[in-house]
Amino acid sequence: MSRRTDKITDENIVRLLEGRNFAFLATVRKDGSPQVTPTWIDRDNDTILVNTAKGRVKQKNVSRDPRVSISLVDDQNPYSMVTISGKVTEQTSQGADEHIDKLARRYLNADKYPGHSPDIKRVILKIKPEKIFFVPPRYQQYLSKRNHNMG
Amino acid sequence: MSRRTDKITDENIVRLLEGRNFAFLATVRKDGSPQVTPTWIDRDNDTILVNTAKGRVKQKNVSRDPRVSISLVDDQNPYSMVTISGKVTEQTSQGADEHIDKLARRYLNADKYPGHSPDIKRVILKIKPEKIFFVPPRYQQYLSKRNHNMG
Repeated sequence: MSRRTDKITDENIVRLLEGRNFAFLATVRKDGSPQVTPTWIDRDNDTILVNTAKGRVKQKNVSRDPRVSISLVDDQNPYSMVTISGKVTEQTSQGADEHIDKLARRYLNADKYPGHSPDIKRVILKIKPEKIFFVPPRYQQYLSKRNHNMG
Repeated sequence: MSRRTDKITDENIVRLLEGRNFAFLATVRKDGSPQVTPTWIDRDNDTILVNTAKGRVKQKNVSRDPRVSISLVDDQNPYSMVTISGKVTEQTSQGADEHIDKLARRYLNADKYPGHSPDIKRVILKIKPEKIFFVPPRYQQYLSKRNHNMG
């Protein structure tokens, strides 16, 4: 039912990462407790990109401890999912404003990201995947039944 | 745009917790790194319930460190979300098989949970919320435009 792969360039993973699926990014706080937050996500070859802003909880957390875990479910079948563990290996502001506009086009179909502000300094987190766990679609029979009943 | 509340019995939070929204549960591994996984979620008054199985990563993690973070987005507007930090205060197998059947009815519209097995011992994690962060629906104008374009 599930399998390990070591490549986010696997076509199943790419489809999940390049859809409009939200990613849930877990980081660790200063006191060692976990923190999770929904985020847009992107991919540049074998690197995962998350666009955040300087001073946000996740940005501060990964500056202290770069280890992250990311989970996405497929909006077409939420029982298909991928979990990726990895590390933030670089943070950059270069191109970060343009990058959030690109994500806004994909996720919102907006021309530009609507949240730009001179007070917000955007940062791209570059994440190197280390472990990938993928579950292909399942439970289709229930989902079609559910949708039928809902319609 | 966002606000803190200390009650999961707030009507906005209840609606998110009792819909068919997946929750993303973050826990901490033995080495201190974060782990996140999608899960069904339930509520019993002011306690959050997650139904897992003995030996699963999240069950082992919370047995070591009970601190968790949970994030949900609204499937009607994914820009409305809640993040809940709290602790697992109890684990019980009592009623856990019936409870996963109840969740399967809600999430899958199935009569029974399809994954029962004599080898799987189900466990309910009872989570006491400590901090709650809620973001009400936003970006509606983009979502309707997006749906229009997709249709």
